[in-house]
Amino acid sequence: MTFFARMIAIASLALGLAGSIPALALDDPLPSWNDGATKKAITDFVAASTEEGGAGYIAPADRIAVFDNDGTLWAEKPAYFQLFFVIDRIRAMASEHPEWKDAEPYKSILAGDLEALAKQGEHALLEIVMQTHAGMSVDEFKSIVTDWMTTARHPKFQRGFDTLIYQPMLELLGYLRANGYETWIVSGGGAEFLRTFAERTYGVPPQQIVGSTIVTTFEMRDGKPVLVRQPKIDFIDDKDGKPVGINKFIGKRPVFAAGNSDGDLQMLQWTTAGNGPNLSVIVHHTDAEREFAYDRASSVGRLDKALDAAPAAGWVVIDMKNDWKQVFPGQ
Amino acid sequence: MTFFARMIAIASLALGLAGSIPALALDDPLPSWNDGATKKAITDFVAASTEEGGAGYIAPADRIAVFDNDGTLWAEKPAYFQLFFVIDRIRAMASEHPEWKDAEPYKSILAGDLEALAKQGEHALLEIVMQTHAGMSVDEFKSIVTDWMTTARHPKFQRGFDTLIYQPMLELLGYLRANGYETWIVSGGGAEFLRTFAERTYGVPPQQIVGSTIVTTFEMRDGKPVLVRQPKIDFIDDKDGKPVGINKFIGKRPVFAAGNSDGDLQMLQWTTAGNGPNLSVIVHHTDAEREFAYDRASSVGRLDKALDAAPAAGWVVIDMKNDWKQVFPGQ
Repeated sequence: MTFFARMIAIASLALGLAGSIPALALDDPLPSWNDGATKKAITDFVAASTEEGGAGYIAPADRIAVFDNDGTLWAEKPAYFQLFFVIDRIRAMASEHPEWKDAEPYKSILAGDLEALAKQGEHALLEIVMQTHAGMSVDEFKSIVTDWMTTARHPKFQRGFDTLIYQPMLELLGYLRANGYETWIVSGGGAEFLRTFAERTYGVPPQQIVGSTIVTTFEMRDGKPVLVRQPKIDFIDDKDGKPVGINKFIGKRPVFAAGNSDGDLQMLQWTTAGNGPNLSVIVHHTDAEREFAYDRASSVGRLDKALDAAPAAGWVVIDMKNDWKQVFPGQ
Repeated sequence: MTFFARMIAIASLALGLAGSIPALALDDPLPSWNDGATKKAITDFVAASTEEGGAGYIAPADRIAVFDNDGTLWAEKPAYFQLFFVIDRIRAMASEHPEWKDAEPYKSILAGDLEALAKQGEHALLEIVMQTHAGMSVDEFKSIVTDWMTTARHPKFQRGFDTLIYQPMLELLGYLRANGYETWIVSGGGAEFLRTFAERTYGVPPQQIVGSTIVTTFEMRDGKPVLVRQPKIDFIDDKDGKPVGINKFIGKRPVFAAGNSDGDLQMLQWTTAGNGPNLSVIVHHTDAEREFAYDRASSVGRLDKALDAAPAAGWVVIDMKNDWKQVFPGQ
């Protein structure tokens, strides 16, 4: 029961109104979700999964739930939040790199021309990611990200990026955990980037993060061991990589998966192909007013093939505008 | 309390002898360990780690314990058990590969000449590992290993390999978990190989296994997604790779580490370099009668540098012969 539900319950009892509030409403594990088919599909699945002897029962050890992050647990527009980090870092590091003002892709970033940056393609992106993510110890990197997160603000909402998380999905994470599920993040974003805030914001500890990684090496520096981040891709946890990452890190097939884009298609397919009961959901960004509305035509978080596949696969499509009472906490 | 301790307690009470058996002995969490400095160092550390407000206290979220497998949780002589699997598989597959009888390294294996195999070096070993570990789905591989484990027998002990686990270490795993620790395996052995028995034998679930991996790819076969094991190394979780693997999979530094060879040296160093309380232990194979006696001169499980480093680092060296009442379960 949430704090508010509890307060209402206590107030109701004090006022002699207890009978007028249905017990179900008081115990609602997903208060930010509107009642309807979407919410019912989720609560029916979870309730059945804990009912021993029932057809929908799932043994506790198999209750593995995986969540994409960008666009599923927090926003991803107008660009992946980790890209804002990269750009801010390039600007912060520019004074030590006078050569950048004449060299692409740095020149475009320093001029604030992100369109020109985008046109330079994947190679340019990789260069600035490595420039900002490698060459320091794991601890140093985490400390840089943590500092950035306290000051950086989202261009549209003017709020810290770690506050642009979806309240209904926080409730879903908590609801699953309360029913014995292990909740994992399986994200195309950087694992160490995620680890700086996932426990605090989502209640997901570092050892339940599957993300993209760069190579790290073990070194002794002044007799102290350090892990140093190298400018080399280790693993990209996106598309085909998601089931691969799930198998590598978790070693068993999830029974619940949540995604929002074609980057999650294979993760949903992998989950659905399990032998027992399972549920996959897709967050569909339909709310231009409270958040952003986009799907098939978007370059960030494109949802096209997975949206086509959803009906036949039995995936529940969450209509953000109509299924969610609230998008961000405190909104 | 173990079954036997409980029986003794009940019998004692019935005979009016309760006063003669100290309460501590009845509650011994490590009954297969002889009393002495080694056992005391472990129980003192664990007791202090759960005592809130004490100098040795460790918050529950930080109670991460890592265990090497070969030579630390189960035996590794005369060769790593996974190598017996490889050799048995090559023999089983030979009828489909008539060309093997004239080609090395297969020829030596089929002739039973493992000394000749050993002389062919790392490249030959890699070839037979890939031949037996790749080219099938993850599920198919696990099923092959599981079948092998039920029939294969250790050459010296004539017991199944999965029974050659160390009873005192099983008790240590359980003792740590009972005190809120997450117990992880961090092994140079194959992650999927380990996952076929680690939960059953050690109580360590698939998602707490860090091991060596080969590349897997996601494919659709007849509309069904499968993960296919490719003949290419993904990650070697040994030596320098152990802290790298720990950081990649766990994302925080362990506070307890157990190893037995120089392959664990960096893992112990990484654990010891943490800011808070921590303990590292080394299983020293000193028992030629009940198991095997080896250290500095052994090619399998060589313990040389880590043994030299132990005193200054404060690592507890477990003397198998003198510290353990029993080695294997039911021995």
